[in-house]
Amino acid sequence: MPSATRARDLGLVVGELPTGRLDKISDVPGVSVGHCTVAAGDSMTGATAVMPVAGNVFSSKLRAASAVLNGYGKSTGLIQIAELGLLESPILLVNTLNVGLAADALVEHQIRECAREALELTSFNPVVCECNDSYLNDIRLRAVGRDQVFAAIADARADFEEGDVGAGKGMSCHGLKGGIGSASRKVRIEGRDFVLGALVLANHGRLEDLTVLGRPLGKELRSRERNLPEKGSVIIVIATDMPLSDRQLGRACRRSVVGLSHVGSYLGHGSGDIAIGFSTAYPVRRDESREILDARELREDRMDAVFRAVAESVEESVLNAMIAADPVAGYKGHSRESLRNILLAGAARTDGP
Amino acid sequence: MPSATRARDLGLVVGELPTGRLDKISDVPGVSVGHCTVAAGDSMTGATAVMPVAGNVFSSKLRAASAVLNGYGKSTGLIQIAELGLLESPILLVNTLNVGLAADALVEHQIRECAREALELTSFNPVVCECNDSYLNDIRLRAVGRDQVFAAIADARADFEEGDVGAGKGMSCHGLKGGIGSASRKVRIEGRDFVLGALVLANHGRLEDLTVLGRPLGKELRSRERNLPEKGSVIIVIATDMPLSDRQLGRACRRSVVGLSHVGSYLGHGSGDIAIGFSTAYPVRRDESREILDARELREDRMDAVFRAVAESVEESVLNAMIAADPVAGYKGHSRESLRNILLAGAARTDGP
Amino acid sequence: MPSATRARDLGLVVGELPTGRLDKISDVPGVSVGHCTVAAGDSMTGATAVMPVAGNVFSSKLRAASAVLNGYGKSTGLIQIAELGLLESPILLVNTLNVGLAADALVEHQIRECAREALELTSFNPVVCECNDSYLNDIRLRAVGRDQVFAAIADARADFEEGDVGAGKGMSCHGLKGGIGSASRKVRIEGRDFVLGALVLANHGRLEDLTVLGRPLGKELRSRERNLPEKGSVIIVIATDMPLSDRQLGRACRRSVVGLSHVGSYLGHGSGDIAIGFSTAYPVRRDESREILDARELREDRMDAVFRAVAESVEESVLNAMIAADPVAGYKGHSRESLRNILLAGAARTDGP
Amino acid sequence: MPSATRARDLGLVVGELPTGRLDKISDVPGVSVGHCTVAAGDSMTGATAVMPVAGNVFSSKLRAASAVLNGYGKSTGLIQIAELGLLESPILLVNTLNVGLAADALVEHQIRECAREALELTSFNPVVCECNDSYLNDIRLRAVGRDQVFAAIADARADFEEGDVGAGKGMSCHGLKGGIGSASRKVRIEGRDFVLGALVLANHGRLEDLTVLGRPLGKELRSRERNLPEKGSVIIVIATDMPLSDRQLGRACRRSVVGLSHVGSYLGHGSGDIAIGFSTAYPVRRDESREILDARELREDRMDAVFRAVAESVEESVLNAMIAADPVAGYKGHSRESLRNILLAGAARTDGP
Repeated sequence: MPSATRARDLGLVVGELPTGRLDKISDVPGVSVGHCTVAAGDSMTGATAVMPVAGNVFSSKLRAASAVLNGYGKSTGLIQIAELGLLESPILLVNTLNVGLAADALVEHQIRECAREALELTSFNPVVCECNDSYLNDIRLRAVGRDQVFAAIADARADFEEGDVGAGKGMSCHGLKGGIGSASRKVRIEGRDFVLGALVLANHGRLEDLTVLGRPLGKELRSRERNLPEKGSVIIVIATDMPLSDRQLGRACRRSVVGLSHVGSYLGHGSGDIAIGFSTAYPVRRDESREILDARELREDRMDAVFRAVAESVEESVLNAMIAADPVAGYKGHSRESLRNILLAGAARTDGP
Repeated sequence: MPSATRARDLGLVVGELPTGRLDKISDVPGVSVGHCTVAAGDSMTGATAVMPVAGNVFSSKLRAASAVLNGYGKSTGLIQIAELGLLESPILLVNTLNVGLAADALVEHQIRECAREALELTSFNPVVCECNDSYLNDIRLRAVGRDQVFAAIADARADFEEGDVGAGKGMSCHGLKGGIGSASRKVRIEGRDFVLGALVLANHGRLEDLTVLGRPLGKELRSRERNLPEKGSVIIVIATDMPLSDRQLGRACRRSVVGLSHVGSYLGHGSGDIAIGFSTAYPVRRDESREILDARELREDRMDAVFRAVAESVEESVLNAMIAADPVAGYKGHSRESLRNILLAGAARTDGP
Repeated sequence: MPSATRARDLGLVVGELPTGRLDKISDVPGVSVGHCTVAAGDSMTGATAVMPVAGNVFSSKLRAASAVLNGYGKSTGLIQIAELGLLESPILLVNTLNVGLAADALVEHQIRECAREALELTSFNPVVCECNDSYLNDIRLRAVGRDQVFAAIADARADFEEGDVGAGKGMSCHGLKGGIGSASRKVRIEGRDFVLGALVLANHGRLEDLTVLGRPLGKELRSRERNLPEKGSVIIVIATDMPLSDRQLGRACRRSVVGLSHVGSYLGHGSGDIAIGFSTAYPVRRDESREILDARELREDRMDAVFRAVAESVEESVLNAMIAADPVAGYKGHSRESLRNILLAGAARTDGP
Repeated sequence: MPSATRARDLGLVVGELPTGRLDKISDVPGVSVGHCTVAAGDSMTGATAVMPVAGNVFSSKLRAASAVLNGYGKSTGLIQIAELGLLESPILLVNTLNVGLAADALVEHQIRECAREALELTSFNPVVCECNDSYLNDIRLRAVGRDQVFAAIADARADFEEGDVGAGKGMSCHGLKGGIGSASRKVRIEGRDFVLGALVLANHGRLEDLTVLGRPLGKELRSRERNLPEKGSVIIVIATDMPLSDRQLGRACRRSVVGLSHVGSYLGHGSGDIAIGFSTAYPVRRDESREILDARELREDRMDAVFRAVAESVEESVLNAMIAADPVAGYKGHSRESLRNILLAGAARTDGP
């Protein structure tokens, strides 16, 4: 049971929309998240699996889209999502040099899943996204193999952990410890509550740009800056049970940048900033016999509510990733402080907003 | 000689980079801007011309790119820029329903320009961008014809006006008066100062989201909110004398969103948010006889300085557009207040950040 | 009543799919096409209007997409189609320098259309596509004004003319006379016949590349070649009553290139090659009160039938444009021969395929 | 030394441009190709490595671009190429489910390469493209591991083999045996010969659409059709020593479709059709100390020669892939015939073109 401190525990409330029950991406029914953390020797890394449905997503594909906010990244699987508008894979998050092994592990996982349904898998589009944790982790070791991927998948649950766990173990964000964060927002449509949730793997930004709810905290902390060249990245996963088309999901993904900007990202050159979004509302079944499929989409002028939910969820997710994380020391003696500790230590200060 | 109040006159300093001499897009050598304002009867609109070079841009084309931040807009000319990476036209800014007439006027202007060089123009890509000023202007009148376009071009100068002038006359921004704003930043490369400037036609955003240097001013002013549906748009023009390739200019344009976000934009559904960028560094001459052209580009890891210059310039441009603007009353008795007046009136308040 | 010769009249049958009743884009119920031809003095040009529905398309918008096959062109309206996936305008075809006036005329037309429904139009995305007819037409005259656009719209009918009419009057294709051509194909889905139709404004290609059903006719005719620099373009409009999503329509549009290639196009550098597609199957009504809309789409693995229908329709449309066209002499004494006459003269030859 | 039959050996000459010395992609100086073929048990697959430069491409990156002709594919590495316009990896070709292992092997290869230069690799963008060979190969076995990738790289040479080798071992094309094919064309610029070459992994198309230099061979062979659902893909690699910018390389890549169309491709729904292009003309060195880089590009109106070279090279490459291939029998007793044998057997026929 996660007991980590979150932004709201520190009185930091992002935006105005109501949150889902857990205030996590898993508030979207069917979505769960699992971690496998590797912290041994020079490895300070891991895998995080976002499971988009309760069962086999290959047999019940979800509307999906992605947005490349900055393409200095190695995420894989986005081309097919763009062409077909469908997600057929769990979304795996790992470090940059571990994408290949993670993709292969997803293939093996999917072969097994399909075998259970007596389906011989011959084609599959694994989705693996990455950030570069080489400051705290000896990234060349590629410590995430099939066992770690399978463990992350097996660990999937609604009330998952945040901070320096899973793929977030070795990540840095705005010069402090980064990692996994999540948040969700409720949107009311036709009298019914829908939910949109975000999960981020936060590994981007410079310390001096860090902004917490408008407070230029990074500038206050500037003396701690070690002025390292940014070699970041941030991955954003957006999930919703709203009936969005793939085009609408693409529009939603592109709003991630608003949330990132609020915390101080400038979409740095060296940062692979990728958003993937999916809707669980109307899956496409593999054994569909009809040739004309029913679909649904939101009336377009209601998209503003979606955009706001994205921006708020992403901003809060980045803060949660940083606040939930403990300080971590790793490869070559490098270390990262925890924003939580900084905020708690500074709680008595009078120069806040 | 512009005497309008600007953000810096009110002590509002965006970012850390040094500004150019005028702190305007025209700090880029060769770039000038002209306005023709139409304020008569139900027309409260105009034209603004960004002249990218001193002479005929068709004969000396500039590296260029664009970014569609949100495509609910009618700007024209972007397809060819994407394919060829070149700008061959002044950039005209007008209201949404006036794009056709403005494009035709640009064609006529260009036929004349080329006739002076004894060139019979048979193909030309006019670039016209637009925002919707129908709250203050009877947009159906399409009051900007050839005379107004020619007047805007003839008015082009380095020290141009901001606020409710030219295409900015009828625009609204964050529920207050919007319009034309500009700013610039210097970037040092290989020991030499280069400059990057932005000009915005600001007509986007909701009042309650308005943020001034981190201060949630819009929320403080919320009681004034009339909760109108956002039918906005923002056009961003980026100019630089840095040697950027069209790909690099595209990367730069995509960072406009950081500046917009800082002032409170959520990239609303109904907003056509378009950025166009160009470099004056190495034009392509129409009469080029060589088949292999010399080009130059910035070493990619220096792009972070460009991105920061874009974000800062765009944020300050939006503030300048709002602060330079006077209150305007127009069509159907609609009116918009001036942010300058609000800030000046509130200077004595104690609830600021 | 069109009596022009078409490809099938000469025994030239493209592909294998059955055609619609007229073998034209207007086989899609609701779609009609009108022309206004201008042939006076140095003007050899015109306007062609593709009306996508019987009534006001602004009040009942259609799913749409476009594909930029080569972007050296000035077509306008594509940005909003990409963002919203909707067409809200007739599609006007004119010459390159006439896009502005045609767009303005469409605005005026739409203001009137909406006034009939007591709707005050404040925003509208006119779609105007263009090719360059400056070889046969003094393009600087911009002879297509509001009267010509209104006349083309008023002329709209199902059994429209092809060849050197409307926007096709001054166009050239593969060194011969080009213009307007159309074709359609039936596709059977769930036991019901649907139709997909194409209309092209053909103004592209070199003579020596001209290929008629695999026969390298251009090479046989090469002695006639005047080796003019290609300054072409081709516009392709795809219509269907199949329930395709905007993403699926984009996929369909991108297959236009197969049809163009079969006739000998190499997608020349100087050619603005643009395809726009729309589906009449499930319009989005302006006064829609529901927030969640029903949509439909084709099961993705059935798209191959759509792709084939596109390729066949586009190939036949180009042939019909050339075969229906009479020889035309125009500006500066330039002239273009008719492919029909060449094929009829060569009918007795024995070296055919 | 390859002795396989090629299209020209059968008198099949595609287009008009002169070929390079070998008529292969390796006519571009520095480019070499290696194979590792796996034909054991149920595995009928392999790896093909395109080495873009003689040394370490990570230390001397090449201008590059890609084009997604149809995105039903799993190729990896394209996002970063689009953002940065650079290739920093060999291009590996394997089967669909083997992408992950091949990417990981490339990472390991690159770590070693960089270690030789005393560079600690922390980020790397492996480029792996794929087609689906599951008709002849038990694709779930993922038989290409690090040893096979390293063997393919070690095998790289200028005069490489074509047909059913390397990644081409299990591929099918137009219902017959597909595989690896290549061709090149010379382009004269400023009095100097440049070369552009293509290499394809051909695994696409239906038998009935097969067209050989305009001859509808597929229709003649239709009785052999087994009417299998197309589950294809084609990968196209374009290399040149012409000084093309990344934008120009993108334009070139998009012309691959012309060559594919000529042989009968309809860009089928189920086919992942991807083109990657690079120029060796002006690499970007990793240790570049200048901040402003010299670049060069072709004058844009000369791109037509490039487009024609692409179209011809791709068409001939597909034919060479099929003609060089021997018949192959594989997984589950499936087999594919050789186009070469069909053409040779039919040489005496009189119904040819």
